[in-house]
Amino acid sequence: MIDGDFGLLSPVSASSSVASLTGDRAVIAAILDVEAAWAAVLEEAGLVPVGSAAVVAEAADPSFYDVLSVAERAQGGGNPVIPLLGDLRARVRELDTSGLGAGKAVHTSLTSQDVLDSALMLLAGRTVSALLQEVKGTTTALATLAEQHADTLCVGRSLTQHALPYTFGLKAAQWFQGVAAAAARLESLELPVQFGGAGGTLASGTKLAAGSGSTPFTLADSLASHLGLAPAPAPWHTNRLAVTALGDSLAALIDSFGKIAADLLFLSRPEVAELGEPLAAGRGVSSAMPQKQNPVLSVLIRSAALQAPGLASQLHLAAATFNDERPDGAWHSEWPALRRLLSLALGAASHLRELSEGLRVFPEAMRRNLGISGPLLLSEGVSAAVAPLLGEDGKQKLQAVVDRTLAAPATEQADTYRKLLRESVPSAELSDAELEALLDPASYLGEAEEISRRILAAYPDFTGSSVKGAHRG
Amino acid sequence: MIDGDFGLLSPVSASSSVASLTGDRAVIAAILDVEAAWAAVLEEAGLVPVGSAAVVAEAADPSFYDVLSVAERAQGGGNPVIPLLGDLRARVRELDTSGLGAGKAVHTSLTSQDVLDSALMLLAGRTVSALLQEVKGTTTALATLAEQHADTLCVGRSLTQHALPYTFGLKAAQWFQGVAAAAARLESLELPVQFGGAGGTLASGTKLAAGSGSTPFTLADSLASHLGLAPAPAPWHTNRLAVTALGDSLAALIDSFGKIAADLLFLSRPEVAELGEPLAAGRGVSSAMPQKQNPVLSVLIRSAALQAPGLASQLHLAAATFNDERPDGAWHSEWPALRRLLSLALGAASHLRELSEGLRVFPEAMRRNLGISGPLLLSEGVSAAVAPLLGEDGKQKLQAVVDRTLAAPATEQADTYRKLLRESVPSAELSDAELEALLDPASYLGEAEEISRRILAAYPDFTGSSVKGAHRG
Amino acid sequence: MIDGDFGLLSPVSASSSVASLTGDRAVIAAILDVEAAWAAVLEEAGLVPVGSAAVVAEAADPSFYDVLSVAERAQGGGNPVIPLLGDLRARVRELDTSGLGAGKAVHTSLTSQDVLDSALMLLAGRTVSALLQEVKGTTTALATLAEQHADTLCVGRSLTQHALPYTFGLKAAQWFQGVAAAAARLESLELPVQFGGAGGTLASGTKLAAGSGSTPFTLADSLASHLGLAPAPAPWHTNRLAVTALGDSLAALIDSFGKIAADLLFLSRPEVAELGEPLAAGRGVSSAMPQKQNPVLSVLIRSAALQAPGLASQLHLAAATFNDERPDGAWHSEWPALRRLLSLALGAASHLRELSEGLRVFPEAMRRNLGISGPLLLSEGVSAAVAPLLGEDGKQKLQAVVDRTLAAPATEQADTYRKLLRESVPSAELSDAELEALLDPASYLGEAEEISRRILAAYPDFTGSSVKGAHRG
Amino acid sequence: MIDGDFGLLSPVSASSSVASLTGDRAVIAAILDVEAAWAAVLEEAGLVPVGSAAVVAEAADPSFYDVLSVAERAQGGGNPVIPLLGDLRARVRELDTSGLGAGKAVHTSLTSQDVLDSALMLLAGRTVSALLQEVKGTTTALATLAEQHADTLCVGRSLTQHALPYTFGLKAAQWFQGVAAAAARLESLELPVQFGGAGGTLASGTKLAAGSGSTPFTLADSLASHLGLAPAPAPWHTNRLAVTALGDSLAALIDSFGKIAADLLFLSRPEVAELGEPLAAGRGVSSAMPQKQNPVLSVLIRSAALQAPGLASQLHLAAATFNDERPDGAWHSEWPALRRLLSLALGAASHLRELSEGLRVFPEAMRRNLGISGPLLLSEGVSAAVAPLLGEDGKQKLQAVVDRTLAAPATEQADTYRKLLRESVPSAELSDAELEALLDPASYLGEAEEISRRILAAYPDFTGSSVKGAHRG
Repeated sequence: MIDGDFGLLSPVSASSSVASLTGDRAVIAAILDVEAAWAAVLEEAGLVPVGSAAVVAEAADPSFYDVLSVAERAQGGGNPVIPLLGDLRARVRELDTSGLGAGKAVHTSLTSQDVLDSALMLLAGRTVSALLQEVKGTTTALATLAEQHADTLCVGRSLTQHALPYTFGLKAAQWFQGVAAAAARLESLELPVQFGGAGGTLASGTKLAAGSGSTPFTLADSLASHLGLAPAPAPWHTNRLAVTALGDSLAALIDSFGKIAADLLFLSRPEVAELGEPLAAGRGVSSAMPQKQNPVLSVLIRSAALQAPGLASQLHLAAATFNDERPDGAWHSEWPALRRLLSLALGAASHLRELSEGLRVFPEAMRRNLGISGPLLLSEGVSAAVAPLLGEDGKQKLQAVVDRTLAAPATEQADTYRKLLRESVPSAELSDAELEALLDPASYLGEAEEISRRILAAYPDFTGSSVKGAHRG
Repeated sequence: MIDGDFGLLSPVSASSSVASLTGDRAVIAAILDVEAAWAAVLEEAGLVPVGSAAVVAEAADPSFYDVLSVAERAQGGGNPVIPLLGDLRARVRELDTSGLGAGKAVHTSLTSQDVLDSALMLLAGRTVSALLQEVKGTTTALATLAEQHADTLCVGRSLTQHALPYTFGLKAAQWFQGVAAAAARLESLELPVQFGGAGGTLASGTKLAAGSGSTPFTLADSLASHLGLAPAPAPWHTNRLAVTALGDSLAALIDSFGKIAADLLFLSRPEVAELGEPLAAGRGVSSAMPQKQNPVLSVLIRSAALQAPGLASQLHLAAATFNDERPDGAWHSEWPALRRLLSLALGAASHLRELSEGLRVFPEAMRRNLGISGPLLLSEGVSAAVAPLLGEDGKQKLQAVVDRTLAAPATEQADTYRKLLRESVPSAELSDAELEALLDPASYLGEAEEISRRILAAYPDFTGSSVKGAHRG
Repeated sequence: MIDGDFGLLSPVSASSSVASLTGDRAVIAAILDVEAAWAAVLEEAGLVPVGSAAVVAEAADPSFYDVLSVAERAQGGGNPVIPLLGDLRARVRELDTSGLGAGKAVHTSLTSQDVLDSALMLLAGRTVSALLQEVKGTTTALATLAEQHADTLCVGRSLTQHALPYTFGLKAAQWFQGVAAAAARLESLELPVQFGGAGGTLASGTKLAAGSGSTPFTLADSLASHLGLAPAPAPWHTNRLAVTALGDSLAALIDSFGKIAADLLFLSRPEVAELGEPLAAGRGVSSAMPQKQNPVLSVLIRSAALQAPGLASQLHLAAATFNDERPDGAWHSEWPALRRLLSLALGAASHLRELSEGLRVFPEAMRRNLGISGPLLLSEGVSAAVAPLLGEDGKQKLQAVVDRTLAAPATEQADTYRKLLRESVPSAELSDAELEALLDPASYLGEAEEISRRILAAYPDFTGSSVKGAHRG
Repeated sequence: MIDGDFGLLSPVSASSSVASLTGDRAVIAAILDVEAAWAAVLEEAGLVPVGSAAVVAEAADPSFYDVLSVAERAQGGGNPVIPLLGDLRARVRELDTSGLGAGKAVHTSLTSQDVLDSALMLLAGRTVSALLQEVKGTTTALATLAEQHADTLCVGRSLTQHALPYTFGLKAAQWFQGVAAAAARLESLELPVQFGGAGGTLASGTKLAAGSGSTPFTLADSLASHLGLAPAPAPWHTNRLAVTALGDSLAALIDSFGKIAADLLFLSRPEVAELGEPLAAGRGVSSAMPQKQNPVLSVLIRSAALQAPGLASQLHLAAATFNDERPDGAWHSEWPALRRLLSLALGAASHLRELSEGLRVFPEAMRRNLGISGPLLLSEGVSAAVAPLLGEDGKQKLQAVVDRTLAAPATEQADTYRKLLRESVPSAELSDAELEALLDPASYLGEAEEISRRILAAYPDFTGSSVKGAHRG
């Protein structure tokens, strides 16, 4: 085996499916696809000999090229297109047995930035497609959880402390909202083709197309169409919004994964035990402790979430220092960051899908934890309902009740609060039954169900067909 | 004077106009505006006594509150809404001389995150408005430069070296494209209102609205309308896409400023001297060197461009670690980053406008620098035109000509290249006049003018009325 | 009140003590201190009229200058030294009533970078002193906890799950180690003076000192000595290691705070309840929920920990793009990042001290949580002790016991594990008493106590005099 | 060829020497080295059968293991040690033909973090050694340039503009200072061994060593000694200063490279042409433009310099969120960042060495550029020398001279300045010869030479034996 990075130190993205879409071979394949598409464009425009495109297409078989050798030779000119082109041209000559002059169809009027920018957009498009498929598996699973657990009581927490009664359904719906909103933004992104020629003036392309029915702009549009990329109104060699917007969208999606992982990692702790990762052979084992079952999917997702912000930032830094008509280092700093964002997103998305689809939910633990705070959790609602019965300083009186309750031992606080409340308000104004109703967490869920419904309805493409929310919108 | 940060160490954003939109007083004002708008919403819905909103509106005069004291007391609860609310309630009681009970209209059913998230969106909206005005001054100036200099020859540079003939008009058009595309994205962003109540279930709001014709959702929409913010389908307490998308858009805009500054800083160097910052009294002075005229606007813009990527990343990091129904530190780490992005963007935008509107352009220097590479700059075009005349290995022969030329002393390269080229091709195939035409940089500008036109046409709102491009689209 | 940033959006650092050390006024004071020290240096070297230094010292009263005006005028030349110098010179003329020509002692042979770099080092030194005092309060408190709780059993957790028995004393000792190691590194840093003159050649200083007994190098050393800074072998205008090393050390210290806050935020959750923040009036209140007691100190510390990495990175980015003899934006991007790191560190340090000194520890909750995993927590030790008794495949047999245990309901796992273990090994080889001893968490603490002792002994300056560890080393 | 990352998108680090030190195979090798060393430690302590270590050593041949398979299986437990251990144990059983029970020497009492932390420190140590060798090649070359060009006049630039006369020797010396200071810090770092056992209490090790003459601490020290790592006073599972300090030092070194690259990229531009990268076949070619000679070494170095700050920041972020006794994602986010920093540093260092050793210096171009500003460059010195001759407002008078000069056309400024100066001062006070001397750039170099000497003397280990500075210190 040769030296390289196969993901040993990045378990979140170490998989053959991620590697096949974002590895060096995939980059080579995308570069070759751009050159082959360009040959087809030129042939269709009558600018190169008939038959050239077929030869180039045959030569553009990525398995023919030595990735490692191209990588090392990339140092000479500073980018991988240059050595790969040399190899491609040699291969085309070899395959051009009938002497068509198919070599004229290779890279003519392009510059290496045209090819690499387009190729990375192509690779990004392919990876994003796979990514969105994983994401929709996740959102479908979360939508189902949101509906199934619409009435599953749990505690809402803020700043780590118990805040209010909540439902696990709403929690799942909010997770869904985070992922679906970010994914919808990513899905709507346009990934543009790049064509500007050596300096961005299309000078060579203008000469090439002169007198034909084509212009460099029609050739560019045709290239976009061949590659399934968006057309660009003008070369964007030095304006990197297409790259930073892609990076930002990937980061935002990973952010939404990170939020879920953070919650999972807490909720699956032994002291909390409201949720559990799916059980699977070999998942979560320890090298030293036989009894350990680590929430390794969440851990890996979180490791990606801690990395994405810095990578997105790297793309902005490149954009912000992109000097001249092609810059002196900034462009080169883009490539690894963009690729890494893609592979982290895809790796994390597949883990999150596995996690969401097999999530173990323990409603009784949710109920038990809700009980820790007991009726105190209702104190906001009690205050709103009871304070008006206590006169001008009703709120102050009720705050005093809470403060006295908090001074009691934890195990006695529920009873103390009930008792002090009862003492504070005459039964005539608030019957025992009314008081108990006020202290029932199920009575203080507000619009939890309706919020969930609105969230699912807002992203119908992400709920999956089996989810009711999808049809309600 | 009290202690604080007035921009002494951030000259790019140190101005009273930036401070008035993004300083602590502006935050206080935005918080008070949210509370006053909420009071109006409640009164309109018949949920608080008639007249309450007017009292709260009177109390919501930011000049009444002590910013410094609120800031210090914010440590207690961890956010500035809590102490400010205390002060506001006291003020409302004071002003409620007729005993309306106007206090009921303050913060009822809200939580501090509702108020602070909405207030920061409000502050962002105000700052973005001012920012876009500066930006449109810049893009108008750049569009004018693009048109005025459509025929101004200069050199296109890649990886620091001379690449091809270019026009300064296209350079200005590409700058325009960078800024206009990023600004259009920022302009299209929706800044949503926040309303979820203490835990995000709208529990208190549900109780409040029960039996009235309103629901928490209609109240939220009304609040959005009062504040000029976008309505939100659901609370977004824990899904921070609205915040990261804003940060990303601001960073992308600053990136586009940074690209221009990087070019300016090179092009205004004494050795290059193609451009100059506007001259103004006091600008660019040195503490030690009487003759120095520093391009200080570009320097300050660049200082912002180096900072924005990290700040946008900070927002993603917060989003990625936003645990529970309100997080344990991530939310707090958002605020200073978002505010700083806003103030850097506004400060840099106003400098860039001054720079663009007063930019000094020196076409003769552009021409002189174009002459440094002389006819060699045309070697791509020469190769395309001449290689076919030289047989199968025409490209190799011409590369040999270039290589021999590069071996000559720099000052003799132009003549050497001409001479070797002339020797390579029989006059019968390429007349002297044809050769000279090939070596004329003006003949190898490709679609420079049309690219500029397309760029201006793509962003009609940013060209200003005096620019032809605006009417051509 | 004028516009500015008083910490409203950064509660972690919003305090008058932080502001007095790191606010704009402190910067002005440090700049004036450098100029005054320089005047003294020049006078001592006989290079300016006797009496000049006293006039400059009188003029260097920071309360005389208008911070806001200096900040706004800093835009002209791009740094605050230039306008402040104008004001200082005017003030010196005013105070030089006897016509000494004291103005000659102001800024002579300096450049603004000399002054600002030295001033920021001075400001950093002052802030670091205050910071280390807070830190030593924290480490003393942690060392005390480490000793007091040397025998307090709790659970050690890895990847969120229960791993092994642990002691709270060792936990406190590890926190101590994190803080003390980072603080010791910060304390050992040398903060150098800057003196290079306009271009870094000391040209003006050479002319000034010519013929006197001094050289620019002796003047620089004298300046360092006056300011309490370290001498520098040479100007470091363009080599920013002094700045990045300071930033790195501050970030590392804040990292160590963040680790503690992360632990605290988990351990003080209601479901865990092993620790509690100190109770204090007004701390941890909520705007909506009367019963909430938020761990606001930890939240604020964590908010700083999430910000420091990006700020340290900003300093490296500046260093990495520091072109020419003074750069075109990178230097300007350093200032706000360095100042913000200092204020975050100081703010967080004082919160951590309050937290450490008043930390509430609940050993019974630790014991209770230890009970959740029960004897399973000892399975590593059991495996080591028992496997040899079970033959070749002893480990496999014991893993099977664990796996069967984990398949039982959580509440029955302790009993199941005991029973299955008992059945696996004949009493002859392992008596009931021996088995029980194996399952006692207190028997499997390894070197917990000795590790704590070694940690405290490694940082004797940080344990405080009352701690035994301080005397043992 | 299998999928992976061979550096195609990171030309700066794409080389077999970098890959052999930092690739996945190198990680596997380091992990195996740690296990083999531990077996030796245990055998020496008499804790495992004699002969075990030899079997483990034989089994620890990295070429035996399938990197790709280990990488993919690492997802199960979240780290690569777990699957590799399985393979290693199987291999040991296979090789343990005499039935020693050598398996007992594998990983006994270790946890995977012990192994991975130690292995990464080992890998770091090996890479840093190679890196320092490259760096010393660079610093030797820079020291030589500093001495050779001690009298080579050039212009000192600040904020892009001409500031003062400078020497290229001092420029090289300052580059040297940047690199040497950062490298010396890196060289002085201690890379510690990790040993804490499953939870960090050394519980298993305590049981293992009980009754032998060893303790877990002596075993740890022995392991450190076997691996050439530094001993650690205590486990540092959760205190990541060793990691962040390493990352910070690598980033600081890359910063110093970036500063040089930034200067080179400007100074080798055609308009400036003071320096040139070494010429080498295949270096700097373009895919489109035959005449292009790109400064590709500098471009690649700069691309690394733009990436390092974010990577160092990633390590701090991990440290700041390292919760519990082993964290839930932060540790995993460290690994790729640390490895990438190492490979970027090594790749960039070898490019910088090639660049420094073959740098082409053009003193005549330096002189020509110095001439652009002409005598105006001396205005600081003129002001100091002449102002006193002009009375109280001498400085103002001379500033007026400069201002009038700057109003003249650029080509006439030199003559204008001379003429106006001459008119301002009577010849009696300043003879023509004295005036000309004042306007000679060579007369205003200050301590340029002595500063260079002091810098070289401060880092004797980095100057190489042939440099005089090395012997002067």
